[in-house]
Amino acid sequence: MKEEVFFSKGMPHIKKDYPDLYEISVHLNDTCYTGKVLDYKTQKLIAIAVNAAASDDRAIRKQMLSGMKELGIKRDEIIDVLRVVLLTAGKPKFTKAVAILYKLLEDPDLASCI
Amino acid sequence: MKEEVFFSKGMPHIKKDYPDLYEISVHLNDTCYTGKVLDYKTQKLIAIAVNAAASDDRAIRKQMLSGMKELGIKRDEIIDVLRVVLLTAGKPKFTKAVAILYKLLEDPDLASCI
Amino acid sequence: MKEEVFFSKGMPHIKKDYPDLYEISVHLNDTCYTGKVLDYKTQKLIAIAVNAAASDDRAIRKQMLSGMKELGIKRDEIIDVLRVVLLTAGKPKFTKAVAILYKLLEDPDLASCI
Amino acid sequence: MKEEVFFSKGMPHIKKDYPDLYEISVHLNDTCYTGKVLDYKTQKLIAIAVNAAASDDRAIRKQMLSGMKELGIKRDEIIDVLRVVLLTAGKPKFTKAVAILYKLLEDPDLASCI
Amino acid sequence: MKEEVFFSKGMPHIKKDYPDLYEISVHLNDTCYTGKVLDYKTQKLIAIAVNAAASDDRAIRKQMLSGMKELGIKRDEIIDVLRVVLLTAGKPKFTKAVAILYKLLEDPDLASCI
Amino acid sequence: MKEEVFFSKGMPHIKKDYPDLYEISVHLNDTCYTGKVLDYKTQKLIAIAVNAAASDDRAIRKQMLSGMKELGIKRDEIIDVLRVVLLTAGKPKFTKAVAILYKLLEDPDLASCI
Repeated sequence: MKEEVFFSKGMPHIKKDYPDLYEISVHLNDTCYTGKVLDYKTQKLIAIAVNAAASDDRAIRKQMLSGMKELGIKRDEIIDVLRVVLLTAGKPKFTKAVAILYKLLEDPDLASCI
Repeated sequence: MKEEVFFSKGMPHIKKDYPDLYEISVHLNDTCYTGKVLDYKTQKLIAIAVNAAASDDRAIRKQMLSGMKELGIKRDEIIDVLRVVLLTAGKPKFTKAVAILYKLLEDPDLASCI
Repeated sequence: MKEEVFFSKGMPHIKKDYPDLYEISVHLNDTCYTGKVLDYKTQKLIAIAVNAAASDDRAIRKQMLSGMKELGIKRDEIIDVLRVVLLTAGKPKFTKAVAILYKLLEDPDLASCI
Repeated sequence: MKEEVFFSKGMPHIKKDYPDLYEISVHLNDTCYTGKVLDYKTQKLIAIAVNAAASDDRAIRKQMLSGMKELGIKRDEIIDVLRVVLLTAGKPKFTKAVAILYKLLEDPDLASCI
Repeated sequence: MKEEVFFSKGMPHIKKDYPDLYEISVHLNDTCYTGKVLDYKTQKLIAIAVNAAASDDRAIRKQMLSGMKELGIKRDEIIDVLRVVLLTAGKPKFTKAVAILYKLLEDPDLASCI
Repeated sequence: MKEEVFFSKGMPHIKKDYPDLYEISVHLNDTCYTGKVLDYKTQKLIAIAVNAAASDDRAIRKQMLSGMKELGIKRDEIIDVLRVVLLTAGKPKFTKAVAILYKLLEDPDLASCI
């Protein structure tokens, strides 16, 4: 399952008020995360990279959180992703994502990801 | 080796005129592409994603090319990367990267990547 | 009137301390929102789209709020704008803007926009 | 019909090699361009704005071209869109889009759009 | 000294857990802020501009703060930087940065920067 | 004089067809490049940085060219700007701008800028 679509606060509203938009969101998630050769975890790591390079705090946090909770992604793996972000998107994006990651890891529920 | 730094037209000039900048570029590449747990190929796929989501044609072409030539990355793998780009960065970025990929694949030298 | 310029916290300071910058801001707003053929409301919807695709939470909230309060823009209209954002800028931007929109709509003053 | 998906060079390849990705592209286009209250032309103008604010030359050209050819969008309308781009995304994006627009309008087939 | 690297919450963790990444961050800062002809203050003003045009609130705040505290950069200088941001990146980026600047200046410790 | 507005191919059309837009462009340029404390050359260097971090090739080339021709900006100064771009926006932006700079410097008319 690729349930990240349910993590967002707005999505339950979209499901109720605009079912066609909800459906395309699920369809989009399912198709994009169903690689022919890369596994879901690798694709999730890629999504974390794109979000860290381009998006707001909330999206980064949501992606990291669902990656660690659903897929058991480890801190070392996310840091290896963020190495590429440092190289390709600059230090402010790297620094922001590092701060978000370590903040998340204060949660005892994620202790196994360290 | 992570030699992508040499693919760019400007870099030989930097090497000659600004050796400190050349050195940091190499150091940055080496450190960022030396993951503790992810292998170089996975990190390269992540770099392709970040570039496809954010950069100009030349950077995307250069990353895909060095990935296919140096690391034997296959078309299917890049398409799986671009699935995540479609989801996280929108259709224009996806469409552009797809066009660049198929243009590159017209080169007979890359036939083994299909 | 295209008074959005007054919604920002920093602008009263600019008006007082840098009157030339304040004047160009007002002039820019006036000229850009005075379409020859598109009406102000359509241009405002376009501004919401560009902000949702590229800007921070505050700018998105401010644009949506002034659009709903000043121009009576409805939720359905903003959602139709965000459909295009989903297509052209990806799901994280869409999701963020949806969350901001529904959060704003909790305000009873905006009940007529639903 | 919202056929812009066929304008891109890479898409015929995607249709043949990755039918699931082709299908989601069409589905995404159809859903996002089927507004409840805004008409297709307004949504297309919004897409031009987002692309002008964020994308590469090719995407901007493609959007403007299909808008003028399929929907009879006029130069004045695109300029009104670009006014908002000037305000919300800065002068370099505005200048680039203006240059692309006037270059396109040299094509006699688009004379009716002036 | 170019100590901004220590301002970020995540960096002490990086120093402890990933010393190679910490080292490259310091090396990158040192090399990039050691201009041959431009002084550090001018380079810092440039960094404020790039961050204001592209980054999140935290990075903008951090850059402005370290610029004012370490280098005695004045409000008028930052406003002159933000003039260029208004021109090259649009009004929402300008407005956001202005709000952050004036918020920072409420701190009595920065009174000398006004 | 801050005549860069005339360098763009689209601008003569805007001057003729949309005089209000032309006027605001000139007004915007004049106001933004008239710093209270920073000189025009420093502001131009900042504009080069923002464009290198965010814009397309044409805008970067245009800014560098007008900076070198109008203001006698030297290669070393632009490289010092691009150091900050490497740090704050990542290596692909840096590499692209370096390639554009050295390509421009092949023009014998710019020999004095080296």
